[in-house]
Amino acid sequence: MKKYDVIIIGAGPAGVVTGVTVKKQNSSKSVLIITEEEKGLIPCGIPYIFHHLGSVEKNMMGLKPFKDLGGEVIVDPVNEVNVKEKSVSLKSGDIYHYDKLVFATGSTPVIAKFIRGYEMKNVYYIKKSYSYIHRLFGELKDKKNIVIIGGGFIGSEVAEQLALHHDKNVTLIESEKYCFSKAFSEELSKIATEQLEKTATHIRTSTMAEEIAGNKDGFVEKVILKGGEEIAADAVIISVGYKPNSELAEKAGLPLNVMGAIKVDSYERTSVKDVSAVGDCSQTIGFLTGRSDLIMLASTATAEARVLGYNLFSVKIKKPFSGTLGIFSTKINGLAMANAGIEEISANEANIDFLSAKFTDVDRHPGTIPGTSPMTVKLYFSPSDGTVLGGEVWGSDSAGEIINIIGLIIQKSITIYELVSFQIGTHPLLTSAPTKPMIIKAAEAAISMIQITKKE
Amino acid sequence: MKKYDVIIIGAGPAGVVTGVTVKKQNSSKSVLIITEEEKGLIPCGIPYIFHHLGSVEKNMMGLKPFKDLGGEVIVDPVNEVNVKEKSVSLKSGDIYHYDKLVFATGSTPVIAKFIRGYEMKNVYYIKKSYSYIHRLFGELKDKKNIVIIGGGFIGSEVAEQLALHHDKNVTLIESEKYCFSKAFSEELSKIATEQLEKTATHIRTSTMAEEIAGNKDGFVEKVILKGGEEIAADAVIISVGYKPNSELAEKAGLPLNVMGAIKVDSYERTSVKDVSAVGDCSQTIGFLTGRSDLIMLASTATAEARVLGYNLFSVKIKKPFSGTLGIFSTKINGLAMANAGIEEISANEANIDFLSAKFTDVDRHPGTIPGTSPMTVKLYFSPSDGTVLGGEVWGSDSAGEIINIIGLIIQKSITIYELVSFQIGTHPLLTSAPTKPMIIKAAEAAISMIQITKKE
Repeated sequence: MKKYDVIIIGAGPAGVVTGVTVKKQNSSKSVLIITEEEKGLIPCGIPYIFHHLGSVEKNMMGLKPFKDLGGEVIVDPVNEVNVKEKSVSLKSGDIYHYDKLVFATGSTPVIAKFIRGYEMKNVYYIKKSYSYIHRLFGELKDKKNIVIIGGGFIGSEVAEQLALHHDKNVTLIESEKYCFSKAFSEELSKIATEQLEKTATHIRTSTMAEEIAGNKDGFVEKVILKGGEEIAADAVIISVGYKPNSELAEKAGLPLNVMGAIKVDSYERTSVKDVSAVGDCSQTIGFLTGRSDLIMLASTATAEARVLGYNLFSVKIKKPFSGTLGIFSTKINGLAMANAGIEEISANEANIDFLSAKFTDVDRHPGTIPGTSPMTVKLYFSPSDGTVLGGEVWGSDSAGEIINIIGLIIQKSITIYELVSFQIGTHPLLTSAPTKPMIIKAAEAAISMIQITKKE
Repeated sequence: MKKYDVIIIGAGPAGVVTGVTVKKQNSSKSVLIITEEEKGLIPCGIPYIFHHLGSVEKNMMGLKPFKDLGGEVIVDPVNEVNVKEKSVSLKSGDIYHYDKLVFATGSTPVIAKFIRGYEMKNVYYIKKSYSYIHRLFGELKDKKNIVIIGGGFIGSEVAEQLALHHDKNVTLIESEKYCFSKAFSEELSKIATEQLEKTATHIRTSTMAEEIAGNKDGFVEKVILKGGEEIAADAVIISVGYKPNSELAEKAGLPLNVMGAIKVDSYERTSVKDVSAVGDCSQTIGFLTGRSDLIMLASTATAEARVLGYNLFSVKIKKPFSGTLGIFSTKINGLAMANAGIEEISANEANIDFLSAKFTDVDRHPGTIPGTSPMTVKLYFSPSDGTVLGGEVWGSDSAGEIINIIGLIIQKSITIYELVSFQIGTHPLLTSAPTKPMIIKAAEAAISMIQITKKE
């Protein structure tokens, strides 16, 4: 029976970053990561395996940084956790004791039991598993008609990547009016959906897949939409969301929230002493909503993992806020699009009072410089105190970092009034013009709106 | 004799943004901009006239946004300002009265009187004047050997752009060890200088131009360096800095600081009632140094102009800090490079205690994705409290916005400890990996340095 100072279950971004951070801070402590599979994948890179990367091997997430620091790794599924005896028993029968235990068990695709025929052959999910995706990658090669059910980020990005193969006929089915509408405003969802349509993807929105039907051998042949329309399918990929991998924790007696995520505090500690949980398997409290949210992003998982890693043995680096801020970005058909914090839909759901203002210009200056492209910044803000509550950016690749400026603005509760004197750097070949810095111009438009609203 | 509520002298970025902001906030007030030239230039775009833009007309800054709001413009040089009578008299003899006066007179190149022969024909400066640059653009066309004296941003960018013409032979002379060393650390200055060398620019650093010599008709033929070396020159461009255009204000009795800039408070007000000054002609107090600085950037000028524009008639939007933060960015030979706040040289000059830490990775993820390029983030921070005091970024174009994240971090006095839980958005095609967000990894490296320093 061996004992480790720290045992981490799971080798995704949350597990690895926790391991690396703990080991860096406590080089003398023994840290073990237990994982089900030898090889791991970078979750957000999975869609790009199907075209841009062109192979599963190019999207590997290694444990080398962790091992280089002296961390140990065991590949063996966990059977059971005993929080009283502080032990973990593995499928092989081995038992390991811990001083501190971290659940970083991630999430798993929601099985579409609500669709008849969901169990047919050649019906796939985007599991964050090397062996599964490796098999999927191989099996899709000779499939022509591919139907993807669910137009969130993963579904849409996989659709775009598959549609870039000229021999494939890709159809995406989304129940909402537009794809990406879980994260983006209606305005941006519409733009994103139009971009996706410009790739060779056929898109059916505001409809549902009612049945997956196939031949007598159980192989899928078509997807039947609500209303009876049939779409030929050699393969179906279902991407209707993920749920926390929390069975193991639940069996061990850890409390879960209504969404099935392991309950944790701001420092990722569960209610059981010496047991923590990070990443997709753990509860997130919305930064702006103040209540349970289901934000599953590698970026927020690693932020949680860093907080836990520094503070696992005692709180050393105080967290300046509580809550998770979802920052989403993607690039479809060459257009970068991103959101941070609230937009209309999530604000209304959470009953948050807001106004929005936007500014459109070009991403370089002057506009005559070669390679310039349009860019829009939209800010969501409190009509009461002017605090920035959310933002969206779309245009060229710079959007991927501009959204992080807005993310910091939200995290620091900066107001539109403060942004008037926010000092930025500009350059003709790199940014918009100093006379029209986009975040600041959007803030100025926001100030005008409050002034008008007050006058009315 | 006509009276305006507001008269602004100067139509550069500071003047135009002041005019637009004042007019937007006070549509019923009459606002007049007085300018010397009908046509204006975007200052930071001037170097790109010589190649990327290919014409002066493509780098025009219009007064249309100001006029569209009902602003008026007079093209006529100002002869004198009388702050007692609150009047401005023009070269034409016209006199205008004001309620509020704003100096936005900009800056002008420092004349290199310390170089013998500086008055020869075909010796030029990069003046922010349409007619001057138009003439320079035309006259450089048939010049083969061009010598540029001064390797700051303007000199270096002009050198790169001219060197992109294969029929030109461009030499840059810089007295410091590296170009860009007024704004960049030695490490980044070296990288920037190497990039500039990779364009066809010949660079001579750690030397001085001692004499500009020419033929009996007064046309330049060569530049003689300290030590006697001679460089053939059909044209010489001198770019050794700018000085505030403050003669008019001085004549009117406004106090100047030691650098010749018009003294102003945090809201850009001079010591004379109803008279303000913004942009290059006005005093800047360093955000970190707390003392007079000579930061002349269109981006800081427009930030000042916005603050003034909102608060000209009464303070309406409180400025959350005082002081100007210099944020510099450029792109040479395809490499984007940027600095915000202090680096080694300026920190030592201002006697600011600091440490620095950096992190290098790739700008997209996984590193195997096509089009990925290396990126480095360097943070300067206080060894006492961990506050971020400066930063540098170099790599792909994203550097232009990443430096603005760092700029906001500095302006909000965020510490390296807070950055551990800073939440960001990541995407394979847009940013570095969620497991290695570059600003946060640099902050973690910074924390380790403080820990090591404390142990020592």
